[in-house]
Amino acid sequence: MQSRSRQELQELVREQLQVLLEQENFQGAKALLVPVQFADITEAIEGLPEAMQAIAFRLLSKEEAIEVFEYPDPSVQQTLVEDFKRQDVQYIVDRMSPDDRARLFDELPAKVVRRLLQQLSPLERDATALLLGYTPNTAGRIMTPEYLSLKENVTVAQALEQIRSLANLRETIYYMYVIDDASRLTGILSLRDLIVAQPDQTIGSIMTREVVFVNTNTDQEEVARTIQHYDFMAIPVVDTEQRLVGIVTVDDVLDILEQETTEDIHALGGLESGGDNYFQTNLFTVARKRVVWLLILLVTNSATAAVITNQEDILEKVVALTAFIPLLIDTGGNVGAQSSTVVIRGLNTEEVRPKEALGIVKREAIAGILLGTMLGIVVVIWAFFLQGNWLVAIAVGISLFSICILASVSGSALPFLFRSLGLDPALMSAPFITTAVDVLGVLIYLNIARWILSFS
Amino acid sequence: MQSRSRQELQELVREQLQVLLEQENFQGAKALLVPVQFADITEAIEGLPEAMQAIAFRLLSKEEAIEVFEYPDPSVQQTLVEDFKRQDVQYIVDRMSPDDRARLFDELPAKVVRRLLQQLSPLERDATALLLGYTPNTAGRIMTPEYLSLKENVTVAQALEQIRSLANLRETIYYMYVIDDASRLTGILSLRDLIVAQPDQTIGSIMTREVVFVNTNTDQEEVARTIQHYDFMAIPVVDTEQRLVGIVTVDDVLDILEQETTEDIHALGGLESGGDNYFQTNLFTVARKRVVWLLILLVTNSATAAVITNQEDILEKVVALTAFIPLLIDTGGNVGAQSSTVVIRGLNTEEVRPKEALGIVKREAIAGILLGTMLGIVVVIWAFFLQGNWLVAIAVGISLFSICILASVSGSALPFLFRSLGLDPALMSAPFITTAVDVLGVLIYLNIARWILSFS
Repeated sequence: MQSRSRQELQELVREQLQVLLEQENFQGAKALLVPVQFADITEAIEGLPEAMQAIAFRLLSKEEAIEVFEYPDPSVQQTLVEDFKRQDVQYIVDRMSPDDRARLFDELPAKVVRRLLQQLSPLERDATALLLGYTPNTAGRIMTPEYLSLKENVTVAQALEQIRSLANLRETIYYMYVIDDASRLTGILSLRDLIVAQPDQTIGSIMTREVVFVNTNTDQEEVARTIQHYDFMAIPVVDTEQRLVGIVTVDDVLDILEQETTEDIHALGGLESGGDNYFQTNLFTVARKRVVWLLILLVTNSATAAVITNQEDILEKVVALTAFIPLLIDTGGNVGAQSSTVVIRGLNTEEVRPKEALGIVKREAIAGILLGTMLGIVVVIWAFFLQGNWLVAIAVGISLFSICILASVSGSALPFLFRSLGLDPALMSAPFITTAVDVLGVLIYLNIARWILSFS
Repeated sequence: MQSRSRQELQELVREQLQVLLEQENFQGAKALLVPVQFADITEAIEGLPEAMQAIAFRLLSKEEAIEVFEYPDPSVQQTLVEDFKRQDVQYIVDRMSPDDRARLFDELPAKVVRRLLQQLSPLERDATALLLGYTPNTAGRIMTPEYLSLKENVTVAQALEQIRSLANLRETIYYMYVIDDASRLTGILSLRDLIVAQPDQTIGSIMTREVVFVNTNTDQEEVARTIQHYDFMAIPVVDTEQRLVGIVTVDDVLDILEQETTEDIHALGGLESGGDNYFQTNLFTVARKRVVWLLILLVTNSATAAVITNQEDILEKVVALTAFIPLLIDTGGNVGAQSSTVVIRGLNTEEVRPKEALGIVKREAIAGILLGTMLGIVVVIWAFFLQGNWLVAIAVGISLFSICILASVSGSALPFLFRSLGLDPALMSAPFITTAVDVLGVLIYLNIARWILSFS
């Protein structure tokens, strides 16, 4: 009777599970699975429609997931791998809110991650990343499972033999990662170390125990910078329990840094960069992405238009003043761009630390005074030469001097401000610098002109 | 008598050589050395004052240089290495014109280069680079001599033994370079190949003969891109005779790409970047470097001032028009910056080829039409709301539409033009785009306004 009641129980769990999943009550499904024996879970999952198997699997706790995945019947594993590739599964997961997903999906066990990654092509891996639970642009998304791992008690000769047999299956054989029985990363070893060691030494006695590693959720740019900083050829990726789940190699890092730099440069140029290739994107998408930015700048520019409208009386009196408005705001914009470019690039390459902000803004302010003095003198002569009015020329010169300081200070300070607010300095700085320079610049100019011309 | 007359000859050569070098008649010194026996050259060079030894050595032909450098007395080699580090020697070489230097200095033999590089620290290497004859930012300047080279007839077991003994002295042991008796590069081998091969196989039978290499004068950015393209960990550097002289490793490439990118970004921001750190440079140097750029832009902006001065009559009649000048030129500048940023970054990463110019300019022109339409409509409403004058609002809208197209076409076309003229698109594009947008933009605006207002 035992076997019958057990079958009944399995059937009951499977039915309830299917109903809950169909209702998209994932919380309920997860709760249902908690007290059930893992063998029964396996049976229940096997009985589900295919599209639901992978989701039910992902709702399991870490301990249950490995038991189910490693279930004696190898077809279970294969079925699950196939399920991970399924489009409709990804569609369901995609529709969950990100925090729901994080709450429902436990981290997958290291062993399962490695098996899944090995059986999925890089393209499939990317597509199933949501199911794996790694967010985009993190180490978890760019790591490869093709590393060599060893146990500490293996000898150098045995390790070399193992490498010989696996060399063609691994992305890099130049670093070996040493793990304990629970897959936890305990050491690292280069092929160089192995080559120069005696054949009967154990790996544990020659490995390096201070391993630099990153976590699955480390940002890819930080992964790249770490590899760059240490001149590594690869870096190990561990999960929250220190279990080795993959490695990131230096050749991927080159591509990541290039992609990140393109995004930085596009942001500086006022382009929202989605990582996709601009030259292959639909033109309407391109226009739509660019227009948002231009509309923001149009609105900020309207403030300048309002200021000028407000000050029309002085322009009506001395139309000659109008001629220098483009020169003043363009030069201010250029000075601001120079300061902000240096600071933004410095922040992105970590050459500049946020705590150095005050010193750098001071420095840029002095640079602004120097530039303003030189340009101011040149422009006074130039403006007089163009219009023959000394008072207008002097008003232009003093305004340019003030605008240079304003521009270099806002150009260097705003990126720090946006960084401290958690915003991308490259994307945020330009409209604010433009507004500051244009609105305040025109205000400064017209008021200085009003004051100086009052002496005529 | 033979020995006396020989000593006399040596003395004569030494004296003449010294006189010619003191007169800085390097051409003459080189001619003097051509018919002399190498043993006599060695003696003559040894007799020279220290500061002249290295220069006399560099004037020798390739064949003579190796004979002198490999002269039986090891002190000669050591003296020459010391000479290469001397500041006054570098000062003299620095003062020669670059083409004089190229004509006078033969390429150094591969063996000599390697010995010199091995005995000079990276810092010294950089300082003596002029003497070595490699121009800055080329493979010759960034290569390291710390590679492993093998002969074809060596067995795998012998090679492994050799690697074991040298592993700690070489920067990378993961690639081995196979050379013939004349130091010419004939093949490449990875440690992986070696590990999986049978101990008694010869290197020649397992090596790869299709080697990707660069020349000493290959630009460092191209070296970096080649390594990136092939996912290499290192690339061999050969001289004009295919002799292996060094390798460039991937960790150096990461730094080069970062440095080149910083230069590109600084150029886009209107900063002349000398490869030095902006935050450690003297403020006056910073201001001097920036002001050149700003003065160029000031001059181009003066053209806008002249155009406005020329069209003052219409502005006098309708002062309201002035309010929209900043908005029009700023938006034009932004649209131009978006187009040029995409093209410049594309050219720098080689994602865009110069021959694709026409297609991309067309694409950007259409993007300009789309953007101009959207922004034009918005601005008409906005301008009317601001000033309540339909005619002015319509003039602003039509102008903005035209300026968007002008900006996207010049923004995408100018980088291609400058690239085809051999100029840096990142540095050259901004002032020309600004001028085009400002001067033509204001002209378009004021003339459209004149025409439209003529209906009132």
